[in-house]
This record gives sequence, structure tokens and C-alpha cells, in this order.
Amino acid sequence: MSGKFIVIEGLEGAGKSNAVRVVDAVLASHQIPVIHTREPGGTPIAEALRDLWKQGLNGEVTTDKAEALMIFAARTQLVETVIQPALAQGKWVIGDRHNMSSQAYQGGGRNLAELVDKIGEVVLDGFEPDLTIYLDLDPAIGLERAKGRGALDRIEQQHIDFFHRTRERYLALTQNNPKAVVINAEQPIEKVSDDIQQAVENFLKFAK
Amino acid sequence: MSGKFIVIEGLEGAGKSNAVRVVDAVLASHQIPVIHTREPGGTPIAEALRDLWKQGLNGEVTTDKAEALMIFAARTQLVETVIQPALAQGKWVIGDRHNMSSQAYQGGGRNLAELVDKIGEVVLDGFEPDLTIYLDLDPAIGLERAKGRGALDRIEQQHIDFFHRTRERYLALTQNNPKAVVINAEQPIEKVSDDIQQAVENFLKFAK
Repeated sequence: MSGKFIVIEGLEGAGKSNAVRVVDAVLASHQIPVIHTREPGGTPIAEALRDLWKQGLNGEVTTDKAEALMIFAARTQLVETVIQPALAQGKWVIGDRHNMSSQAYQGGGRNLAELVDKIGEVVLDGFEPDLTIYLDLDPAIGLERAKGRGALDRIEQQHIDFFHRTRERYLALTQNNPKAVVINAEQPIEKVSDDIQQAVENFLKFAK
Repeated sequence: MSGKFIVIEGLEGAGKSNAVRVVDAVLASHQIPVIHTREPGGTPIAEALRDLWKQGLNGEVTTDKAEALMIFAARTQLVETVIQPALAQGKWVIGDRHNMSSQAYQGGGRNLAELVDKIGEVVLDGFEPDLTIYLDLDPAIGLERAKGRGALDRIEQQHIDFFHRTRERYLALTQNNPKAVVINAEQPIEKVSDDIQQAVENFLKFAK
């Protein structure tokens, strides 16, 4: 049986790392073999694209369109060389971000929704996660948490309006989406973890 | 008055460098200020993308889709930060390759025509050269010339069928295209240069 692709999505400081650990624990309790990915990144070329996009080069920064295209290049490299082969071998893949991040950040935050949707359609050709767990919270709360972790990166330094547009798009994409679960990430972490565990257990009832 | 964008296209060994010099000389004789670009590349980020695509990283090579997306990322970075600002200042831009290369090599050679056409539409949003000079020749002749220049790069090492598909697509794209001129690049170089000079002079009659 081929594996399943579970993706964690959410704004900075939403608790994605904790969510990955919770999903890990549930799948381990069912003896399901997993691999982990993060996007953009996950292969040497994809990580090089991530660095080039995040850091720029010689003072040059990527334009918004170039950013979106580099992220899609990293994504298709990861999907074709890592995710799809793992799924074909029956492994489950736990992804820290996938295409919904592009739709939310570049599509919503950067106002490139049409470009991102069209590129996604033609590049991914229908490939999508079996389950997306979206950790929803007020951007101000998430950024406060992210600041506590240290220096903010290029995305984290965006104006708060950028994150509000990103969150709105996340909510629109997950609403009435049978393959997505929205978790209230403003709750105490134990409650968030419980909700994620429940979501994965529910998914397993139908997926196995 | 805004500048014009003239692009040289063709297979390996078709004589693009010579063609750029001929176009340069014609425009100089008309006191037209020019800048030069080459694709993929032309900005620090675009050149880094070119290197990553041509050389791969830690033994990893790009998938065909990732290659196409990285080339489009480099292209939009170049168009937005170099070509369009130069044209707006009244400079003319002489390009060593542009979008027709993606349509021919990735679209034709790699059989990704639909992907390349759709990405081109949404990324370039109608932006295109004012004149494309396509240097047409039998791929076998061009590769023999390219070999004479030294070690072949990743594209130049493709099977000859790849180049035949690429040439076919070039011919289809330039046929009945009022913004393209097809030059027979199998002729002696003096005759090729004369034909290019004539094409640019004809273009200038209408463009100025």
C-alpha cells in the first residue's frame, strides 16, 4: 500500500514543530514508517534555492515572482525525488509546509494568487497532501512567539498586514476542505496537541 | 521613447556571439545606446540559479520541471530588475536567449511544452522581444562547432534527438511570426552576418 502525505501548515510561531512531534508519535504508535520534509528545502538543490531566496546574493533580493518560482522549483525537486518515491515505498511523509504555504504567503501575502494557483496546477498536476493540519492563530501572537526564538528572517520581517492577508488565505483554503483540519493554535499547547492527535487518529480510521 | 528588446536565439554552435556583435555594430552606427543580457543569468541571483542548474549540487541534478522553473525564476528576476528598467530609460537591450529558448529546449527538447507555455504566460504577462533573430542550422553541425570550443556542458551532452526536437520547436515558433526572423546559419559566416545586418536595418526602419 502506498503511504500518505500529511502536511503541517501555519504562520510563524503557530507551533509547527510541536505538531510534527505529535503526528510522529501517533504514527509511531501505529508502527507506520515515516520520513520528514520541510519546504522550501529537503534536497541539496532545494536547500540551495531556499538559502538563495532567504538571503539574496551580493545585496540583490528576489522579486516576488522569482521568489514564487524558486519555491516551486524546490517543491517539484522534492516531490519528484523524495516525496513520491517514499510514498511509493509505503512510507508516510510528514511535511513541514507544502503548496498551501505558497498559496497563502505568495498568493495571499504577496497578492500573487493567480500566478501561484496556475503554476501549482501545471507543476503539481493534481499531487496534493492526503491531510493538511492548519494551525490557526492571530499573526500578532505568532510573531511575538517567533521573536522569542531570535532574529527574524526575511519573511518574518514583513509588515503585519502581510500576515493578515496570509492568514485570510489560509482560512479560505481550509474552509470546507475535506482534506484539511483547522486547529485553534491560540489554545494552551496541551489542548493543541490533543486536537492534532485526535485529527490524526480520525484520519487513520479511514486511511488504513 | 522606450527602447527595444532584440533577442538572438538558436542551438549550440549556431553563432549567437557573432550575431550579438553584428547587432551591436548596426545599433552603434545609429547611435543607439544598448545593454547586453544573457539567459539564464544576468544578475547575481540569476547567475547563481544558472550555476545550480548547470552543475547540480552534491551529485544531485535538477528534475526537468525544476530546471524549467529555475530558468523562469532567473528570467523574471532579469526582466523586472534589468531589462524593463533599461527599456524604460530608452536603452535597447540585446539578449543572448530569452523565453523562446525555454519554449524550444524545455518545451520541445524536454517535452514540457504545456508547462512552459502556461508558466510563460502567467509570469511574463505579455512581455516579449520586439525582434527575435533565430539562427537556424542542423543540430549535428552546431554540436560539431560547440565541441571545437571545449568540454560540453549539461545541455550540450543531450542526445541528438533532443536537439532535433528543440530545432523543430524553434521552427514552429518562428514560422509566420511577424516579430521573428529566421537566418540560415549554415551559410558562410560573412553571409550570415550580412543577413542579420539586413534584418536589423529593416527592423530599424519601422521601429524608430
